[in-house]
Amino acid sequence: MADFMFVLKNFLVVSLAMNMCLIWKISYDDEETLASKWSSWGNLQQKLHFHGSCFNGEKNNGRLEDAHVSKRTQILPTTSSGAATVVPDGGESVVINLDHGDPTMYENFWKQKGEETTVITSGWQHISYFSDIKNVCWFLEPELVSAVTRLHKVVGNAKTDGRHVVVGTGSSQLYQAALFALSPPNASDPMNVVSAAPFYSSYPLMTDYLKSGLHKWAGDAYKFNKQNPYIELVTSPNNPDGSTRQDVVKGHKGILIHDLAYYWPQYTPILSPADYDIMLFTVSKSTGHAGTRIGWALVKDREVAKKMTTFIEINTIGVSKDSQIRAAKILQAVSDSCDGDESFFDYSYKLMEKRWKKIREAVDKTELFSLPDFPPEICSFSGRSFGQLPAFAWLKCEGDVDDCEGFLRRHKILSRGGKHFGASTKYVRISMLCRDSEFELFTKRLPAIIS
Amino acid sequence: MADFMFVLKNFLVVSLAMNMCLIWKISYDDEETLASKWSSWGNLQQKLHFHGSCFNGEKNNGRLEDAHVSKRTQILPTTSSGAATVVPDGGESVVINLDHGDPTMYENFWKQKGEETTVITSGWQHISYFSDIKNVCWFLEPELVSAVTRLHKVVGNAKTDGRHVVVGTGSSQLYQAALFALSPPNASDPMNVVSAAPFYSSYPLMTDYLKSGLHKWAGDAYKFNKQNPYIELVTSPNNPDGSTRQDVVKGHKGILIHDLAYYWPQYTPILSPADYDIMLFTVSKSTGHAGTRIGWALVKDREVAKKMTTFIEINTIGVSKDSQIRAAKILQAVSDSCDGDESFFDYSYKLMEKRWKKIREAVDKTELFSLPDFPPEICSFSGRSFGQLPAFAWLKCEGDVDDCEGFLRRHKILSRGGKHFGASTKYVRISMLCRDSEFELFTKRLPAIIS
Repeated sequence: MADFMFVLKNFLVVSLAMNMCLIWKISYDDEETLASKWSSWGNLQQKLHFHGSCFNGEKNNGRLEDAHVSKRTQILPTTSSGAATVVPDGGESVVINLDHGDPTMYENFWKQKGEETTVITSGWQHISYFSDIKNVCWFLEPELVSAVTRLHKVVGNAKTDGRHVVVGTGSSQLYQAALFALSPPNASDPMNVVSAAPFYSSYPLMTDYLKSGLHKWAGDAYKFNKQNPYIELVTSPNNPDGSTRQDVVKGHKGILIHDLAYYWPQYTPILSPADYDIMLFTVSKSTGHAGTRIGWALVKDREVAKKMTTFIEINTIGVSKDSQIRAAKILQAVSDSCDGDESFFDYSYKLMEKRWKKIREAVDKTELFSLPDFPPEICSFSGRSFGQLPAFAWLKCEGDVDDCEGFLRRHKILSRGGKHFGASTKYVRISMLCRDSEFELFTKRLPAIIS
Repeated sequence: MADFMFVLKNFLVVSLAMNMCLIWKISYDDEETLASKWSSWGNLQQKLHFHGSCFNGEKNNGRLEDAHVSKRTQILPTTSSGAATVVPDGGESVVINLDHGDPTMYENFWKQKGEETTVITSGWQHISYFSDIKNVCWFLEPELVSAVTRLHKVVGNAKTDGRHVVVGTGSSQLYQAALFALSPPNASDPMNVVSAAPFYSSYPLMTDYLKSGLHKWAGDAYKFNKQNPYIELVTSPNNPDGSTRQDVVKGHKGILIHDLAYYWPQYTPILSPADYDIMLFTVSKSTGHAGTRIGWALVKDREVAKKMTTFIEINTIGVSKDSQIRAAKILQAVSDSCDGDESFFDYSYKLMEKRWKKIREAVDKTELFSLPDFPPEICSFSGRSFGQLPAFAWLKCEGDVDDCEGFLRRHKILSRGGKHFGASTKYVRISMLCRDSEFELFTKRLPAIIS
């Protein structure tokens, strides 16, 4: 019986390991590789906090070592094909990386789908730089325009009539394109760029990494002097805290960019079609296809759309046709599913609801943590009444713990600390988008933590 | 008989029209669209001269009007599927756009290929941001590394041993990534970036469009004060003139980037495997797959490769997985073809040789133009002895014509003038990479020009 239990335990651990999102093996046998890996992730974490996909590893401040300098600490390399290594201690030594937000939780939905989401591309197709020379955005595939327009109509989350669609290599590129389009080319000072704290941790870096003379990061929108010209980023639902946002500066020299990456019915009740001047979306968060690197902007003003297009021309001479075609097919399948038995948004809503229930239960078992509450509202898409189910949990360490990120790291949970978002270090951002097995491990470990 | 000839003439014109590369219909019925199109192309031409894919239209200086303000002037919309409009006057009114370099001439080769170049992607594949977390370039698909490494070995045009491969959204992004990696982050002055004139017309813009404090365009490398720090771009074979290049500043504070986009055996004899610190390549010019937006850098120094990777992380959070997988398949098919009856490089070499023979014959029929000559050398890949067959013809207007671009435009041939390349306006760059039909029309019209 003991043998059987041992085998069973190992089986469970292997099973967990086989599905872990973004983790890898650490051993003393491979210190160079280890160092370089952590250095690379540290680099990424220090320099880039992309929409929930980032890594918590800093080589130079020793924090990482806290998390893994133990021969028993294991982080396992896995892929969707599931190569795995046995963990010897029932999962306790596994570092759970919830710093990033690789949206792998939707993978199972797409595995159920067959030919309708399969793309076949012959060697001679999509060879040209050009997609539609009559369009302001000449590298935009017409199929993608149709798919985007249809999906927004089906979901009711954004107005598309009279808008120009600009495609980007993810919404990050579109954010930079919008800054380029909205910053005066010959001003004596760079344009101020602000967002209300807590703000998406990549905005400052994406604004300033080239030391541009066109624009500069000017921090928390709440602290900005509204007499000066500015661009305000409004992320709604917000990354990291999931709240619904409006612009806050309300100066007369302001221009707004609305980042609506999470304005989809698995994360938030859809209240009305968004109707702003520049709205950014991405397949990474809407359907989970982060690897295709496709985002789109809905832009009211033709000149702004043209300038954004110019940025992408100079930056990357357009956007992968292959990924545009694929994204179009995926988005059409999502629209189609809304007429079927279980829509993609039903599936993903239920998954998010289940995870939020689980994380709240885990937090309720201890006095150490708290989570924001969201009042229910009626979703015009589903008819359901529910509160936000954000893609990230904005977890607060209660009591005396001032460095929540460090505290969790000592318990082998990697998260992103509040300071990266212009907020208190008592907060961390936790990804809710990883595969099931990792989420299970996390919600088991959290209430077991004793300060 | 007259009727038959009329039908035959019309048939020929329709046939030509059906394959024209990147042209579109102009009519007085659609002035708004026309203006916006030309404005858009003008914008593109003014702001971006990418590797041979650019458009000659400037709304504000009236030059374009020279080319098309005639009811008889026609530019026809075509796609590879061949929708076409009948031209009423035997093709004389057609504007031939050879300003850009969309590499559609290889399309027929790829049409002959079947399953071996077909990519099938299921809805659940390549969802993650991550490709290979052990690699410095964590978003690089291992299949692409294998394909790139194999092809360079087969062709013998670049050393790959001990190099890091960094993938980019086209080589433009890699150029910008290299500038980011090589420019000191905290220097008081931006790093100087130079290239020997005539230089690729996009370099100045890609260097300066964000008014970066990291780097600035410093012009012709021949005129640069070698005492100052600099990055020198060495493009070999050179765009626009096809010449083989070495670095020219030879200062002790210089760093080199080698743009080897055209160092393939259809364009130039391969003399030895290139062995430089940073070498840039792209599928756009090697195989003609411009729409996939895949380029790669071979980088000796690990820290430089890491910084280039960081740039791409911030800029676009990686590179389309779909296009990487497709590029890998295409590059493997090219390598495979080198073991078969007719390799891709045989096919493309013969096509380039035929075109260069034709354009030289056309130029020889008139005193108005001249072309550079290239001495033959033995290609280590094919064993053939031949002179350069550049992707662009660097055409000179002889005699009194000082504005060669304007002169050709009056004859409805759009090219890119020498001033964009830091050279004399007596020169223009003519794309050699369009579809057959347009090239035929061009080589027919050129010798018919009387000044």
